[in-house]
Amino acid sequence: MTLKLVIGNKNYSSWSMRPWLALRGCDIAFEEIVIPLYTDDPADKARILSHSPAGKVPILIDGAVTVWDSLAIIEYLAERCPEAGLWPADAAGRAHARSVSAEMHSGFQALRNECPMNLHREIRPVELSADARANIARIEDIWRDCRARYGAGGPFLFGRFSGADAMYAPVVTRFHTFAVPVAADTRAYMATMMAMPAFAAWVKDGLAETWTIDRVENV
Amino acid sequence: MTLKLVIGNKNYSSWSMRPWLALRGCDIAFEEIVIPLYTDDPADKARILSHSPAGKVPILIDGAVTVWDSLAIIEYLAERCPEAGLWPADAAGRAHARSVSAEMHSGFQALRNECPMNLHREIRPVELSADARANIARIEDIWRDCRARYGAGGPFLFGRFSGADAMYAPVVTRFHTFAVPVAADTRAYMATMMAMPAFAAWVKDGLAETWTIDRVENV
Ligand SMILES: N[C@@H](CCC(=O)N[C@@H](CS)C(=O)NCC(=O)O)C(=O)O
Ligand SMILES: N[C@@H](CCC(=O)N[C@@H](CS)C(=O)NCC(=O)O)C(=O)O
Repeated sequence: MTLKLVIGNKNYSSWSMRPWLALRGCDIAFEEIVIPLYTDDPADKARILSHSPAGKVPILIDGAVTVWDSLAIIEYLAERCPEAGLWPADAAGRAHARSVSAEMHSGFQALRNECPMNLHREIRPVELSADARANIARIEDIWRDCRARYGAGGPFLFGRFSGADAMYAPVVTRFHTFAVPVAADTRAYMATMMAMPAFAAWVKDGLAETWTIDRVENV
Repeated sequence: MTLKLVIGNKNYSSWSMRPWLALRGCDIAFEEIVIPLYTDDPADKARILSHSPAGKVPILIDGAVTVWDSLAIIEYLAERCPEAGLWPADAAGRAHARSVSAEMHSGFQALRNECPMNLHREIRPVELSADARANIARIEDIWRDCRARYGAGGPFLFGRFSGADAMYAPVVTRFHTFAVPVAADTRAYMATMMAMPAFAAWVKDGLAETWTIDRVENV
């Protein structure tokens, strides 16, 4: 049974990007169903609701099993496809990867509001609040600390690509698009992520989309 | 090595309650370290930061491993103490439990803002926004649906007590304290949760605390 991933517009849907990258980055075969978000057509929202009563994307469908929420999907894939190595193999690394992933999942509101993902946006800085700047500093610390502790085996947060990289991928696009001033090691990690074929493929698809969401375009 | 759980005031700290209940509800031995939140004394925040650079409780310390964030701690405990059965044994139930737990972890902002956990608050209703009412309806649906699908083996969301019950426990206190009008099956589930010895022990400890957080008291 082919896995199906229901996602939003690739240009804008940061939560959708995460499990999509986890699937692609690990060479797991799946079919994608793209539903444009925040349109004037109530049929679009109804389509999301027909897949999941939570009314949000991403949603993973695996035969009779429906999993919603980016993080729950990554946990599901980590179990279903253990050979993909979505979480670090050792318990301490895994605990750390889950902690930073959960911190992303529930936090960094200021950054998320002030720098929404928008791949086709012209690259230019915005004035950031103190909270957004604190979010950025914390994220730089997280990336630095993960790579110092666990990054020996490769250029990703835990060496090889993991669910934690997937969770932070949209932040990479935000730092890039909003020309956020970051340290050299942060830029190196961003370059690693942007060079992933799966990351580049997502961006390419996003740039080819013609839907626009006005409230995001005004940022 | 005894597990240590760093938590906030039991009266107010909803995120702390979750892994504490998971530990207690499963009879896992641990030591607790309580740090009062949002005080005027910067030493309190410094103590949190000395355990975790994310600067928030709960934090689990297991020898050299530090895990922060309620959901990451529950994942860690589910792996470390498999006999506790913190996630359902079958893959579909586990995926469902993680989906609803992640939905709680990242959502229901209106309810969280308008009905903050405050165990010693006088029981009385407040005027709720449409968003908060939608949150409540969605939570009632989640509880009903979990119990209909997976609740055959007991009175909890997935039959026996699980990480999903732990994640929703503070919502039970909110529905109770803010006298939220809910359906009979919701009230039955709330009664099940409040009757758990671990739940009652947390509430008892919270009511014995004398710290107060003004901004929460004014709601
Ligand atoms: N916590 C969820 C958040 C999902 C979410 O907010 N998705 C947005 C798009 S990125 C959405 O579906 N919005 C459509 C809507 O609310 O109608 C996750 O991690 O998957
Ligand atoms: N996503 C985190 C949220 C933790 C959180 O917000 N904790 C609050 C108390 S309930 C806190 O530590 N606040 C203290 C502060 O921010 O200084 C989790 O699930 O553990």
